[in-house]
Amino acid sequence: MASLTPKEKIALITRNLQEVLGEDIIADVIEKQNRPLKIYWGTATTGRPHCGYFVPMTKLAHFLRAGCEVTILLADLHAFLDNMKAPIELVQHRAKYYEFLVKSVLKSIGVSIDKLRFVFGSSYQKSEAYIMDIFRLSSIVTEHDAKKAGAEVVKQVASPLLSGLIYPLMQALDEEHLGVDAQFGGVDQRKIFTLAVENLPSLGYKTRAHLMNPMVPGLAGGKMSASDPNSKIDLLDSAADVEKKLKKAVCAPKEVEGNGVIAFVEYVLIPISELGAEDGKARFVIEKDGQEIVYETIEKLKEDYIADTIGPKELKVATTLALNKLLDPIREEYANSPEFKEIEKLAYPPPPAPEKKKKEKKIGTGYVAKKKGEVDGQAAPTTVDLPVAAPGPSTPAAQGLPGPYLRFTEAIQNGKVSAARDALKAIERIGVAPAKLRELKGQLSDLEGIDRAGRE
Amino acid sequence: MASLTPKEKIALITRNLQEVLGEDIIADVIEKQNRPLKIYWGTATTGRPHCGYFVPMTKLAHFLRAGCEVTILLADLHAFLDNMKAPIELVQHRAKYYEFLVKSVLKSIGVSIDKLRFVFGSSYQKSEAYIMDIFRLSSIVTEHDAKKAGAEVVKQVASPLLSGLIYPLMQALDEEHLGVDAQFGGVDQRKIFTLAVENLPSLGYKTRAHLMNPMVPGLAGGKMSASDPNSKIDLLDSAADVEKKLKKAVCAPKEVEGNGVIAFVEYVLIPISELGAEDGKARFVIEKDGQEIVYETIEKLKEDYIADTIGPKELKVATTLALNKLLDPIREEYANSPEFKEIEKLAYPPPPAPEKKKKEKKIGTGYVAKKKGEVDGQAAPTTVDLPVAAPGPSTPAAQGLPGPYLRFTEAIQNGKVSAARDALKAIERIGVAPAKLRELKGQLSDLEGIDRAGRE
Repeated sequence: MASLTPKEKIALITRNLQEVLGEDIIADVIEKQNRPLKIYWGTATTGRPHCGYFVPMTKLAHFLRAGCEVTILLADLHAFLDNMKAPIELVQHRAKYYEFLVKSVLKSIGVSIDKLRFVFGSSYQKSEAYIMDIFRLSSIVTEHDAKKAGAEVVKQVASPLLSGLIYPLMQALDEEHLGVDAQFGGVDQRKIFTLAVENLPSLGYKTRAHLMNPMVPGLAGGKMSASDPNSKIDLLDSAADVEKKLKKAVCAPKEVEGNGVIAFVEYVLIPISELGAEDGKARFVIEKDGQEIVYETIEKLKEDYIADTIGPKELKVATTLALNKLLDPIREEYANSPEFKEIEKLAYPPPPAPEKKKKEKKIGTGYVAKKKGEVDGQAAPTTVDLPVAAPGPSTPAAQGLPGPYLRFTEAIQNGKVSAARDALKAIERIGVAPAKLRELKGQLSDLEGIDRAGRE
Repeated sequence: MASLTPKEKIALITRNLQEVLGEDIIADVIEKQNRPLKIYWGTATTGRPHCGYFVPMTKLAHFLRAGCEVTILLADLHAFLDNMKAPIELVQHRAKYYEFLVKSVLKSIGVSIDKLRFVFGSSYQKSEAYIMDIFRLSSIVTEHDAKKAGAEVVKQVASPLLSGLIYPLMQALDEEHLGVDAQFGGVDQRKIFTLAVENLPSLGYKTRAHLMNPMVPGLAGGKMSASDPNSKIDLLDSAADVEKKLKKAVCAPKEVEGNGVIAFVEYVLIPISELGAEDGKARFVIEKDGQEIVYETIEKLKEDYIADTIGPKELKVATTLALNKLLDPIREEYANSPEFKEIEKLAYPPPPAPEKKKKEKKIGTGYVAKKKGEVDGQAAPTTVDLPVAAPGPSTPAAQGLPGPYLRFTEAIQNGKVSAARDALKAIERIGVAPAKLRELKGQLSDLEGIDRAGRE
């Protein structure tokens, strides 16, 4: 708002954050240079954005309200490179889907998005200037430091890929190539932020400020994961689904630490109600015994929750109501926008229909039939793990047929070690990208570990 | 030669090599496809090419004689990235200098260079297609495998740089982007070659053959190093210098293993005399007691050397004569080519003239004067270590003045630990690229180690 003083702007920008590096940079831009702070937030466009995205979105709303110029980096290239799980066209569709959804979410929480800019990573991360900067940065950052930087962000596996060392460098360079003053992210990004602070000056670039959100537990308990459909509430889930999933959410009575529902109220619902209020006061309503209790601060709510004045049930009902109120305009926009629907279909194409039971018959090219003995005799797959095959013989799944990958996923989910081992053999035989194979083998070892542990 | 049979071509291509991977690929191209084998050899354009370059050049002569299409990759980008010791313009001048010199060497040994192609790394290694391939490859190669691949090629230091992990990937990708059938290098490249064999197919690219030279000891004993002027014979050294340096060469009587002079005869002088002979027979002449002994094989020469029939002195004289005969046309070409001389000057600019003794006077901006106390009181520097400062305050040396870097080099050379430590402090204070600083600190630790060891 034009009416905010510089001090108020800075307070709003840093509200609810766990840590800020380079506050002087922010103060300099807003107080001395008297211009909008330019800030970026990046997201790899892989799984569907879920309700956990409300947390950073709420901060983006703060930034926009404080007059910042906000850039959202749709990191399609990162998403593509993350084990090459999806082809570049697919992650670019996903980036567009993210753009639709993020705009919709921000509109839903009542923020003007005039100063919001979306940038596709692939639009500049393949440029000569960017590449030379990756090369230059790789010549001053040690392996050790790159590894350390990604420790909390890059998936830690037994045989880490080289790409995991390049990512932190790219994230640092994005600050320069997006022309921002500050980067925003979760506190899990801290080491990457530090890498940027320590190394950008060596390339002749200025140091940026870094704004860090605390790590907020997911609504369903633990980290909300996009890849497990049962652990997350999709931004386009129906009101009934939201109610159902919240009912199942972990929410221990009298416990506020690690309580995802309380955290959602604290980091999303209260700040948003505050942004939308004419008097600037937060307002979160819980109904108990037919009476409305209005909370203006999270502290009061936590107090009552610890004292058991309000319990998980009332809290969940209130949260469901408030969340559905936020999701309603998003669902509505989706329902009324053919483009939105179209891009959703392109970004997350439905899995190939499971083959109907005709097991006696040879299927398609006969390729599957040849493998039949190894992968047969299992129920139709319930989830689809998009296969990435190395150029070579097409996999059954690539031909729209359920194949060993699906069976592997299935076996994994049901904890069937021997079935998974058979499926892996079949997968190895049909030719598969090494990264994928490694991933599957890792999953199998995990499963075997569980299996052994279970037997002991 | 058009007159060589396919079998003869293959024999010539693989002659004197220690190892060949993918001989079937070579046979397929030459015998089945009946076309010239396309092969590449890469060199990072840093220090001046010295006489050690005759060893791979002799193999290139074989390839060309066997009708191969030979590509020389002038890896200017690699050179630039190698700790960013020299700016990109400088390494590109050096790449041009390499091109002049390599052509001159090949002409000197009598090979047609019609089928020789020079490619600058920077001409395609910054392209979108190449970069995407680096990204893709980094997503299937593990950190561990990239590290292992570079183990014998990338300088092993306490804090290895990330660039050292990217180099092997680039060297592998160059095979595809240069469109060759085979890569040639020393056997020290073996692990990088293996990385290429194992991973290019995952990107949908074909597997290349790999031709490996044995590791040949330098003329001056040990590895011939471009960075130590005393350990190497420059391709443009005068006849007198060659004589002088060969006289100093390590060449133990009766020992042929690890004997750089014998190795030079084996891998350069004998093969070249053979290429130039009308009857195809090698001929290496040693004068002893006024009589000429003609060697047609290295085996006979080694036999006589072990038996002490010929000693280091006769061998050195004969080698000096033969080497000078090879160098004469190169020197002549240089002397008669203004372009050659011009590019040499641009590639290896003379160090700034050492400041004359005017110590009482303030120099230039006064910047040096401020540091006087720390770096003063030492003799004028004899060698110049081109400083690469981070953008920021100019270093004295960047202004053509002797500065802390020179003093550091000087102190290092004279083993003065405390002087070097003072110089390092000054260097840190004037702002310096971290990679450079790390390097200098490493040198200082080494020196301190020596110092301590000396004191014990």
